[in-house]
Amino acid sequence: MVEAGTKRYALGLDYGTNSVRSLIVDVEDGREVATFVFPYPSGEEGILLDPKDPNLARQNPADYLQGFETAVREAVAMARRAEPGFDPARIVGIGVDTTGSTPIPVDRDGVPLSFHEEFRNDLAAMAWLWKDHTSFAEAAEITELAEKGGYPYLAKCGGTYSSEWFWSKVLHCLRTAPKVFASAYSWVEFADFVPAWVTGNAKPERVRRGVCAAGHKAMYHADWGGLPSREFLAKLAPELAELRDRLYDEAVPSDRLAGRLSAEWAARTGLAEGTPVAVGAFDAHMGAVGSGVRPGVLVKIMGTSSCDMTVAERAPDIPGLCGIVPGSILPGMLGLEAGQSAMGDVYNWFVSELCPPDYAADPHRLLSEAAAKLKPGESGLLALDWNNGNRTILVDPLLTGLLIGQTLHTSAPEVYRALVEATAFGSLRIIERFEEYGVRIESIVAGGGIPEKNPFAMQVFADVCNRPFRLSRSSQTCALGAAIFGAVVAGVYPNAEAAQARMTGLKDTVYEPIPENAAVYAELYELYRELHDAFGTKSHAGGLYTVMKRLIAIRDRVRKG
Amino acid sequence: MVEAGTKRYALGLDYGTNSVRSLIVDVEDGREVATFVFPYPSGEEGILLDPKDPNLARQNPADYLQGFETAVREAVAMARRAEPGFDPARIVGIGVDTTGSTPIPVDRDGVPLSFHEEFRNDLAAMAWLWKDHTSFAEAAEITELAEKGGYPYLAKCGGTYSSEWFWSKVLHCLRTAPKVFASAYSWVEFADFVPAWVTGNAKPERVRRGVCAAGHKAMYHADWGGLPSREFLAKLAPELAELRDRLYDEAVPSDRLAGRLSAEWAARTGLAEGTPVAVGAFDAHMGAVGSGVRPGVLVKIMGTSSCDMTVAERAPDIPGLCGIVPGSILPGMLGLEAGQSAMGDVYNWFVSELCPPDYAADPHRLLSEAAAKLKPGESGLLALDWNNGNRTILVDPLLTGLLIGQTLHTSAPEVYRALVEATAFGSLRIIERFEEYGVRIESIVAGGGIPEKNPFAMQVFADVCNRPFRLSRSSQTCALGAAIFGAVVAGVYPNAEAAQARMTGLKDTVYEPIPENAAVYAELYELYRELHDAFGTKSHAGGLYTVMKRLIAIRDRVRKG
Repeated sequence: MVEAGTKRYALGLDYGTNSVRSLIVDVEDGREVATFVFPYPSGEEGILLDPKDPNLARQNPADYLQGFETAVREAVAMARRAEPGFDPARIVGIGVDTTGSTPIPVDRDGVPLSFHEEFRNDLAAMAWLWKDHTSFAEAAEITELAEKGGYPYLAKCGGTYSSEWFWSKVLHCLRTAPKVFASAYSWVEFADFVPAWVTGNAKPERVRRGVCAAGHKAMYHADWGGLPSREFLAKLAPELAELRDRLYDEAVPSDRLAGRLSAEWAARTGLAEGTPVAVGAFDAHMGAVGSGVRPGVLVKIMGTSSCDMTVAERAPDIPGLCGIVPGSILPGMLGLEAGQSAMGDVYNWFVSELCPPDYAADPHRLLSEAAAKLKPGESGLLALDWNNGNRTILVDPLLTGLLIGQTLHTSAPEVYRALVEATAFGSLRIIERFEEYGVRIESIVAGGGIPEKNPFAMQVFADVCNRPFRLSRSSQTCALGAAIFGAVVAGVYPNAEAAQARMTGLKDTVYEPIPENAAVYAELYELYRELHDAFGTKSHAGGLYTVMKRLIAIRDRVRKG
Repeated sequence: MVEAGTKRYALGLDYGTNSVRSLIVDVEDGREVATFVFPYPSGEEGILLDPKDPNLARQNPADYLQGFETAVREAVAMARRAEPGFDPARIVGIGVDTTGSTPIPVDRDGVPLSFHEEFRNDLAAMAWLWKDHTSFAEAAEITELAEKGGYPYLAKCGGTYSSEWFWSKVLHCLRTAPKVFASAYSWVEFADFVPAWVTGNAKPERVRRGVCAAGHKAMYHADWGGLPSREFLAKLAPELAELRDRLYDEAVPSDRLAGRLSAEWAARTGLAEGTPVAVGAFDAHMGAVGSGVRPGVLVKIMGTSSCDMTVAERAPDIPGLCGIVPGSILPGMLGLEAGQSAMGDVYNWFVSELCPPDYAADPHRLLSEAAAKLKPGESGLLALDWNNGNRTILVDPLLTGLLIGQTLHTSAPEVYRALVEATAFGSLRIIERFEEYGVRIESIVAGGGIPEKNPFAMQVFADVCNRPFRLSRSSQTCALGAAIFGAVVAGVYPNAEAAQARMTGLKDTVYEPIPENAAVYAELYELYRELHDAFGTKSHAGGLYTVMKRLIAIRDRVRKG
């Protein structure tokens, strides 16, 4: 047994939507030594809501700092108990991941406006949480301006700007909370705010900006010299063009140092002053690193929705992808992000709305068991997985679900299986899109809730995608990915790949495709593609592209009364 | 009060699948005096089954005769109790309707072969009930021969011959029970057998054949000189061509006399010897008469499936209709028959397979109540009503259900409503098809279980079809229709229309279309038509015509293993 005194550790902090998790790992092998979860104390489960506007979701930046202090201190205490002779000074590097785009308005010193008495209760002065959708009109305006003006800025994010992203939110703040906007010297992404703050680099000029947030959400790209041009922003609002000068010209990957832990934060947490802190990134991207992402391996986080990430030495612009950003996942490689707007949410919908009494006691388990007894193709059913729109490939929120093949005997397990298959077909469509543009996908490492909970679904995915699905050894891949960058900036490893090679691993479970199932699914996938293209693409000869949209238009009109 | 002694009555016999109903009505006004139901005693609920072949469904013709005797005698006894001074001699005419095509093999005397000791237990010697599907291969063979040979015989029955129909069954008997076939001097439809037998006209040469059964099910039409040609039948089997000579050259409507009640049957029933008995017809067609069918009025029997009937002075061949037969409903007019393969069966399917616990206590009522609170278009859903194929217009059993527009919030009442709307859209498609060929449909008289049980569905139908839906006053429209022809052959009325004018009526309930609902449904129907044509017609540019069929082909292959 190696003595703890000779060991070195890395610390990862994973800021999620409702809580922050700290994780201390052994840099030698990624072994998890201690972890602690701190729920954000403000609002409802950490989220500040507005009863008058269901689109609004904000957070109190103070929670982030309190979370850092508590989660680190408690993890250190646990490590002391778990590991004889553990010394927090042996934590050699720190990495941070967060949700995003979650921009925070700050003053000239980088202090969140909400820390000022004047804005203490002003929701616009808080952190604008990723899932805040108040800015939908501004998002459409930005998309339209980029499209009609012939600007290139949407080429790396699938062609459509989102209400969840940086510029939509900042513009909405300008329009609806002009006092907050005027008082904000700059805006800082959550992922940049935490590393900057704990290293004493909070002043906007000193904040190291991560390329993950900048590239995926703020239209930052070297191809057009960083952020969108002053001219473009001025067309949205002159104030945005002015703000551009107070943001940043450079954004960097997470193998770069954000700074070193300040004396104050060393004292607060029990860590050593000067501990290197890596530049922050988004949770999913660091999760990919913690899952062992590399060229040829797709990391698929399968939860209520799916987030699909891989890396490539090079790739062209790929139409329909959420994001293609150099260094956003692994430094020196293109980070490629795709996703499905709903996955577990589709199964949950069926269970909550259409599950008959026979299966009600434990719906997912009982329906999965019954569905697992069916053979591929046996039900005669086929579904599209668009109950929440289509995020990747079609990039169209105005798409809806479809089920075809029902008879008078179609059963609930058959429909449940068809829905699982639909999400798997949607996944295969993404894999194919990668490969159509030269990015090969040989195997998948799955994370998230579904791989842990639903072996039936995993086998369907393996059969449909005709590729093995493996599971990450760690169940805290995001925090592990952050810790990996902590180890890199500490100099333990020369780069993230070397750290991954030692610190990540896979479970023994492998879902291998069953050839006879894969053969039937290949046939069914052809039919899926026909429906996918008929209802999802404007150019299809069938003229059905407008059907879902017209149903939505009628629905919205009728609901408004 | 008019004294019963001066009154005149008509008797209708309605032979259904499981029982026969007798109904005595006042010829003046159709008032129902007495009715009795006699369940067939043989087999399971009157049906002889073969555990080895789920397609087989036969009946014992002896049940029909025992049913006549008992049902009439009991109704007479009831009438005596109900109506002071009632005299069965005042029953001036009798009409009969039955299921069909339900052909019976008979000997030279018209005695069913099953009455002979030799064939007592031979299922092939029994009546071949309408829903016997053992002859599916022969049906396909007949369709193919008619199509490829350029024969006109399918022009009046939608282009596809069915396994439920006369020639399929007779040919299947020849192939699988040659001894029965060889012993059968002729074959008589159930609807012709009963009137012939009770009037002493059972000998095949003397049986008056009804044009309803002949025209709808045996490809009889004046345009080609009656039954299909010897040449055509010989191509199926030489024995069929020979049989043709022992069938009939003429088939007539139900205002014609089948004969007069024989002394034996007068004695058995208590009716007067010599009472006129009308030529028989199918239950649905006589139900249309009892519902007051006339030009411009569609009678729609809405049950597990739907049967839609109207009459017209003249009409061209209408593609996709089940049948166009002169005199099959009202003498002197074309009888037009259409239908939907599933209606209540679609709602029943949803309730039995996908109804969540909240609605399980009384699913149709609770789902209807919740669905009734929604506005048209509010759910964003649209469905196709093809869970059991499409009988009219597309005439295609290889079609299946489709549901589109699901989100993560779609609820069970929304789906239920979408399914009801789908069946209503299917009904409108039939109405439109009639009108495309010059047969106007101004209003609908609905019969069957749904109008009695589901006012929510009826309002949806009225709104979708944008026409008033009324309900027949009588809940025994088939037996009433039969009684009407009894009154006509008795000479009480000069024709069926005159009898209808007095003997039929409507309930006060009218489902009037609500203009704002109709307006939204007009929009949704456009979308229904687009899906209908995209998935249902070969010529559609979308190339989706094969999708449902390929799913079925995969399903059938996988199920066979």
